[in-house]
Amino acid sequence: MHRFILRRSLDAMMKTPGIGGPATPRALSLQSPPQELLSPLRVPTRLLLGPGPSNSSARVRAAGALPLLGHLHPEFCQVMDEVRAGLRYAFQTRNAVTLAVSGTGHAAMEAAIVNLVQEGERVAVCVHGVWGERAASIARRLRADVRTLEGPAGERFSIAQIEQALLEHRPRLLFVTHGESSTGVLQPLEGIGPLCHRSDCLLVVDSVASLGGTPLHMDGLEIDVLYTGSQKVLGCPPGPSPISFSQRAWERLLARKTEVPSFYFDMKGLANYWGCDEGPRRYHHTGPISAVYALREGLAELVEEGLERCWERHRRNALRLHRGLAELGLQLFVGEKEARLPTITTVRVPPGYAWKEVVDFIMSRHGIEIAGGLGPTAGQVWRIGLMGPNSTEQNVDKVLLALRDALATCSRSKL
Amino acid sequence: MHRFILRRSLDAMMKTPGIGGPATPRALSLQSPPQELLSPLRVPTRLLLGPGPSNSSARVRAAGALPLLGHLHPEFCQVMDEVRAGLRYAFQTRNAVTLAVSGTGHAAMEAAIVNLVQEGERVAVCVHGVWGERAASIARRLRADVRTLEGPAGERFSIAQIEQALLEHRPRLLFVTHGESSTGVLQPLEGIGPLCHRSDCLLVVDSVASLGGTPLHMDGLEIDVLYTGSQKVLGCPPGPSPISFSQRAWERLLARKTEVPSFYFDMKGLANYWGCDEGPRRYHHTGPISAVYALREGLAELVEEGLERCWERHRRNALRLHRGLAELGLQLFVGEKEARLPTITTVRVPPGYAWKEVVDFIMSRHGIEIAGGLGPTAGQVWRIGLMGPNSTEQNVDKVLLALRDALATCSRSKL
Repeated sequence: MHRFILRRSLDAMMKTPGIGGPATPRALSLQSPPQELLSPLRVPTRLLLGPGPSNSSARVRAAGALPLLGHLHPEFCQVMDEVRAGLRYAFQTRNAVTLAVSGTGHAAMEAAIVNLVQEGERVAVCVHGVWGERAASIARRLRADVRTLEGPAGERFSIAQIEQALLEHRPRLLFVTHGESSTGVLQPLEGIGPLCHRSDCLLVVDSVASLGGTPLHMDGLEIDVLYTGSQKVLGCPPGPSPISFSQRAWERLLARKTEVPSFYFDMKGLANYWGCDEGPRRYHHTGPISAVYALREGLAELVEEGLERCWERHRRNALRLHRGLAELGLQLFVGEKEARLPTITTVRVPPGYAWKEVVDFIMSRHGIEIAGGLGPTAGQVWRIGLMGPNSTEQNVDKVLLALRDALATCSRSKL
Repeated sequence: MHRFILRRSLDAMMKTPGIGGPATPRALSLQSPPQELLSPLRVPTRLLLGPGPSNSSARVRAAGALPLLGHLHPEFCQVMDEVRAGLRYAFQTRNAVTLAVSGTGHAAMEAAIVNLVQEGERVAVCVHGVWGERAASIARRLRADVRTLEGPAGERFSIAQIEQALLEHRPRLLFVTHGESSTGVLQPLEGIGPLCHRSDCLLVVDSVASLGGTPLHMDGLEIDVLYTGSQKVLGCPPGPSPISFSQRAWERLLARKTEVPSFYFDMKGLANYWGCDEGPRRYHHTGPISAVYALREGLAELVEEGLERCWERHRRNALRLHRGLAELGLQLFVGEKEARLPTITTVRVPPGYAWKEVVDFIMSRHGIEIAGGLGPTAGQVWRIGLMGPNSTEQNVDKVLLALRDALATCSRSKL
């Protein structure tokens, strides 16, 4: 009886909505509109010299405001093709499967791992900062057998250490962070690819904080998966994340016995949508049209400058920063000169200073972002990024001036 | 001996890169820059009356070109808070966990399922078009025990059918598509939530194609997870996807025995970053700053118009379109008047016409996008979307004029 009444009342309710009915079922009253959205959006201008996002050029930002196209319109497919060509150049690769995942940097990290790692497979991760930890976490979530090679923050791994780890663990996949932005370390990659390939291990490299700012040749180094972010050297808003799969990685993916656990990151669907395979492009998901326009323009700026000039600009401005920091009596966190990342510099907080006070002072008085440490460097360092359009002599001098002011002004008594 | 030589040469290579070294290791020559990126980016203006993306207003597009902020700057956190307030209003919910996932619509679908479904758990999916199929595919990838309730394309499920499926399968989660954009069907939701909750089943609703265009009260309907896309009624570029979790869903998530297999979509990390929990916001991933600005403005436009007026505008313009289509002698795919989605209308391709020819004609001669069918409607229908700023009387009249022209012009001989 009770059941019958419920059914009747439900059937009555089913009639209330629908296009023929009244706009609002009478029973449900509306929550009131939020007043905070009735004020205009105000965004201050900041010079972003932290670990990213960097500032974007006016050209890149304007591209993001162009009229929308459909995600399969021929004109948009052409933009995607141009992005692929630009990415192949930026990565120095001829890989067919080169595209941008529709999410920020971590999405590309997850896409790399979720496509190539199956439950129970052994994965080795070089951990000398936050990004290795994140990659290990993703692989563990997929129930991989994760082995970590841990190194001290601020140092890089030697090829001997990596070779030893490969011999000891015999992993199917090795993860290495090229630019460890949490510590400011540049990990050399020479020789690792061939070592991996002697034992059927794939090499996955995170270059979110390094790509475009320092030499990196995906094919020359025999890297199997390389990915980066849009918001660092490429100078775009955080958005779609470039990634490329080698033929070897692609064959591993095709040979999987289990389906890729993610639909959104399934590289077979993405590769088809991006025109990387033979088939006609099919709908996989709706791409972030405006953000792909912006990425196209960020890549066009890189192509116009030329990779080598871009690398050299980042190197030169980083060295200028390092000299200036030394003149201020500050010490770099990364001792070994060759291990320093040209895109993001880690500076030891000198005794007697509260790191946060200096960061806040530089933001409020100079409108410049520098950041504190992250993970193993939290509380110990400041991180200064000079990436993409922000890597200029003027910006080096601005941030040095701001630091000089902060060191002179901020109380030493607060520790 | 061979090994020793390899090691020596690798150690020598390790010295070549780094900030102190030359910009390019001599051994690797550069691929040449792609010429196609040296031409300017050209984007034509189209009236997007397909199933989405819709056109964005000038205000929304301009927001996407504002200067960048850091992803944890207080000014950006305030924008995120405003987005949350706007989403709570759009969803008509008071849920604490209301935010936007950093990916397009499918990312939100995956986030809903990956957070709430564990291996072996039973999931029931209402399939009457493409979106149910996609949800089932995602759940299967996670090795859930997926049961589908299949209905004919163009029809909606009755509450009795859904009740029957719940009794038969006893699922832990039920997935329903509110606006099935592949068929043009609006699925009524009244009563489903309480039915689910009688047997500890969660109700997940896809409102990508419906939210804002027709009445939907998340709390009033006892929906546990509701998500949508930014590029339909909200009138933004495809970008971050709004999602909200009820307290019941949140408790299910907290009670999981296994870790969420995805880091990028892990709702606990996302909820903290979006300020939905008590803790201080921590870095989880880099949010798509510019796209969040745009979403804020899309929501502000909705708040200024008011939900009820927005629902009514979509209803009125859809009815105007339906009348006009009837006057052209065209038949709607969805027979039952109350089952018609006000945002996307499916029109049967009349005998003698090639659907693609008409679509191409309307694009090339009128600069208007209408789309063909998808999944079960492929080849059978045209899909006409009137969403967000595109839902106007003028646009209805434009697309009717274009259709009249196409029907008169396009050859009937090509079938």
